[in-house]
Amino acid sequence: MCQLLALSCAEPTDVTFSFTGFAARGGLTDHHVDGWGIAFYEERACRLFIDDKPACRSPMAEFVKRYPIKSRNVIAHIRKATQGGASAENCHPFMREHNGQQWVFAHNGDLRERNWWVSGPYAPVGTTDSETAFCTIMNVIHKRGVDRDTTPDELFDVIEDITRNLNQYGIFNFLLSNGQSQFAYCSTRLAYVMRRWPFSSARLVDADMSVDFSAYATSEDYTAVIATTPLTDEAWTTCQPGDLLMFRAGSLVRRAHVPVPPQVLATARYAPSETSGTPVVSMG
Amino acid sequence: MCQLLALSCAEPTDVTFSFTGFAARGGLTDHHVDGWGIAFYEERACRLFIDDKPACRSPMAEFVKRYPIKSRNVIAHIRKATQGGASAENCHPFMREHNGQQWVFAHNGDLRERNWWVSGPYAPVGTTDSETAFCTIMNVIHKRGVDRDTTPDELFDVIEDITRNLNQYGIFNFLLSNGQSQFAYCSTRLAYVMRRWPFSSARLVDADMSVDFSAYATSEDYTAVIATTPLTDEAWTTCQPGDLLMFRAGSLVRRAHVPVPPQVLATARYAPSETSGTPVVSMG
Repeated sequence: MCQLLALSCAEPTDVTFSFTGFAARGGLTDHHVDGWGIAFYEERACRLFIDDKPACRSPMAEFVKRYPIKSRNVIAHIRKATQGGASAENCHPFMREHNGQQWVFAHNGDLRERNWWVSGPYAPVGTTDSETAFCTIMNVIHKRGVDRDTTPDELFDVIEDITRNLNQYGIFNFLLSNGQSQFAYCSTRLAYVMRRWPFSSARLVDADMSVDFSAYATSEDYTAVIATTPLTDEAWTTCQPGDLLMFRAGSLVRRAHVPVPPQVLATARYAPSETSGTPVVSMG
Repeated sequence: MCQLLALSCAEPTDVTFSFTGFAARGGLTDHHVDGWGIAFYEERACRLFIDDKPACRSPMAEFVKRYPIKSRNVIAHIRKATQGGASAENCHPFMREHNGQQWVFAHNGDLRERNWWVSGPYAPVGTTDSETAFCTIMNVIHKRGVDRDTTPDELFDVIEDITRNLNQYGIFNFLLSNGQSQFAYCSTRLAYVMRRWPFSSARLVDADMSVDFSAYATSEDYTAVIATTPLTDEAWTTCQPGDLLMFRAGSLVRRAHVPVPPQVLATARYAPSETSGTPVVSMG
């Protein structure tokens, strides 16, 4: 399947360090070679870079690593195709505008059947189950009348309902953001780390690179990094299957448990892990 | 105001040459310094690069010039802000998905008032008249039930109706594409060139660069380049105010005359030209 990465930050933050380790998994330290993508929110705008080349040898990924765009909300993805070929329209993250906000989604998993599809103004451009699931989420958000007056807690309730429905159909680890809230659901595997003052240093697991955050960050900096598996030697929290989390400005502000059906966990239990060769569930 | 560039091609074509000349107008040979953007269709996908830095010194523009993404449909824009500040959410082109197709729009002009706004599922993220006009176009396309079965001619009729309404409110040179058809409207200023076998060479007006197309192109290559003012020393056709054109696969397949109201032309007549200091209408 795929790997996910997100950042939620109180202050605009350079994602270069995390993205360097993450991109190495796109063919160098791991086998996710069917494309990659990254979305950076910059105030109300969202810049999306996608490429169907492996992240470890994509000129665009090199450009992103060298060009420090600062952002409070980032979602990135590297792809190992399960449904849909290796082409640009099938690269995550996917982006749609709703009510004057850009929404971004990335998925690690495999949803079977398509009878969960909800129609509306959003439709997939490519052929993945992931983009179809995202458009279903957006169509439900549209039908439920989510607008700029919807509170984060009301939005969380909507996302929780959608998750409870979609996760019946297969592995559904996902990241979703509207540029303010960052939602993360652990169907089988997800972890996060919170960076706070006083900062320490961190070393990437996938590349020979360290950063001493205390040299750059201030007491105003709150950063949450969410990834399929830990990117650094810091103290990451491993999510439990069923964890639905909402981060805002670098803080974990709400969580709920949306149980993963036993038949989905059973599928995952016997799937080989992509990063370590150990069973998937041992990681999540 | 701004400058527009589009390509419609029968075969995937490298836009590097045209974009190099065009990007020079973003602060080097001209004063369009409030950002730039380019959208490349790649089969069903569309990659969008935007930047609020002047194109002539944007690292992202340098990357695009050096990295030859091949595309059959391209829309690019460099911005001199009239409405909306110089920020990423106000950079053209703008992109929205409808019915599983990405639609892209860029505008050169200035639409007064907002009583032309048509509501629906699409809403602007930024503060420009241009993105608001694009969302109005998309909401009309949605209301009129445009879908994958709509023929190019039926779509042309819809675009012609929308143009006839919006161009009452100000200068409305625009480019619009769904990845298959390329629509171009000349409210005051637009030109195009058709490249066909046997090819000759062309020299950029804005940079010291020439290309001998006969060395690269085949008899299968049909390319139409559309721009606010000619980019090269080739034989460009100057559009007349009111020309609405539809290009497909490098050929001009339909045109209509949508008259520009005299009061709009009068505004343009006394506006200084951005490229030569001569009146705008002398160019278009």
